[in-house]
Amino acid sequence: MERITSRNNEKIKYACALKKAAVRSAEGKLLAEGLRLCADAAANGVAIESCFITEKLLQNEAAKPVLEAAQAVYRIDEPVAEKLADTKNAQGIFCVCSYKEPVTEIAPEGRYILLENLQDPGNLGTAIRTAEAFGLSGAVLCGCCDAFSPKALRASMGAAFRFPLIADEEGTLLQEALCKGMHLYCAVVDGDAQDVKVLRGKTGIITAVGNEANGLSEKLRALGQPVTIHMSGRAESLNASQAATVLMYEMTL
Amino acid sequence: MERITSRNNEKIKYACALKKAAVRSAEGKLLAEGLRLCADAAANGVAIESCFITEKLLQNEAAKPVLEAAQAVYRIDEPVAEKLADTKNAQGIFCVCSYKEPVTEIAPEGRYILLENLQDPGNLGTAIRTAEAFGLSGAVLCGCCDAFSPKALRASMGAAFRFPLIADEEGTLLQEALCKGMHLYCAVVDGDAQDVKVLRGKTGIITAVGNEANGLSEKLRALGQPVTIHMSGRAESLNASQAATVLMYEMTL
Repeated sequence: MERITSRNNEKIKYACALKKAAVRSAEGKLLAEGLRLCADAAANGVAIESCFITEKLLQNEAAKPVLEAAQAVYRIDEPVAEKLADTKNAQGIFCVCSYKEPVTEIAPEGRYILLENLQDPGNLGTAIRTAEAFGLSGAVLCGCCDAFSPKALRASMGAAFRFPLIADEEGTLLQEALCKGMHLYCAVVDGDAQDVKVLRGKTGIITAVGNEANGLSEKLRALGQPVTIHMSGRAESLNASQAATVLMYEMTL
Repeated sequence: MERITSRNNEKIKYACALKKAAVRSAEGKLLAEGLRLCADAAANGVAIESCFITEKLLQNEAAKPVLEAAQAVYRIDEPVAEKLADTKNAQGIFCVCSYKEPVTEIAPEGRYILLENLQDPGNLGTAIRTAEAFGLSGAVLCGCCDAFSPKALRASMGAAFRFPLIADEEGTLLQEALCKGMHLYCAVVDGDAQDVKVLRGKTGIITAVGNEANGLSEKLRALGQPVTIHMSGRAESLNASQAATVLMYEMTL
């Protein structure tokens, strides 16, 4: 096993560059950090090009499946691990992975959450994690920040590797789904809109949640029926990821 | 209006020191940052000891109520604002405020969320914001991180200034409330526990959510009835703040 002692090693520089969205997008690669995320990648058939691991983590039994799945494994010294790390107190394991191939179909009988223009990686990751928790069919992503950025991956607790993500930047898959008879509900802050209870137990539906500050686009709202969470308190004060949680809860209630 | 040009000014050093929990606790003061938070503090009768504001923000009409409420106002230069700022792209307004006096009573007919040992300021702030959105009576805090840290304040969107927060570190207020006939429900991950639907529409209840990693303490669980969110997906994968959202939603449904 090759040992990397220099923070300026080319492979380390490449891995670090993947912290930037533009580089990830150009390379089709991402950097996963920590034992849990790397193990999730390995367990879900994500192609692991290289794994960088410290001596200490090499002793950890839980790292074995990652080492087996990786095409190449490099032992790294602590200062190198510090350079790769995106968090404080990082565990000493990092994997350069290929992006998961996005799902390209929306099942007509399924239940989906559509996330439009979410810009906070924490919100996006949490919404994906919650969609998985509630057993939804998938998440349709439209104009969102990168679900595979280090922060979004951490917030999703690896759900981004396990859960069906449908990239639909142009809205063509949504259009197809609506043509097949699926229903689109659009989350809005509007006391006159139908209550979210209308979602309860339905299948063949897509529920859309919009940008943190601006909500859903006009274009999307024109395609579906508005729904709202009626609240006795300060409705405007519910954030995008909490609203998405309530919607998904109702969908699967 | 006194102008502060030096980053080493004693008042600036004092305000910066309030970013540390230990200093906040010892001084009973906090540092609010940004127009929205400072305006929330002013609008909710929080005592503002001093306001530090840049030339640019002085022109902003929305800053007026803050300036009127503050006991002292200091004009600051941009480099000083940068030192005070906890976020990138901070707005140039900062207030040293007294802590709000915590509420010391739990209303027997109310609906409360109890948060035990939440350690992530983002989770705590979001839970407080959501409790306000749903119109709960208050949030009982027990062993949580500081609701008035810069990060928690931002996540609460100022709800921490508006919404009743009950500090109950020893659990005495909870005990009193239970003696008065209130019911405590404890959120657990346990397929055998009652479903959260049992909370629906009830009053005179307190619902407890525990630490992100370890859930509720044994001590607390012994005092209430367990409830759980039955899900078809990966139940273990719902985070504390999303679980709290579902519980609060059911309480007010």
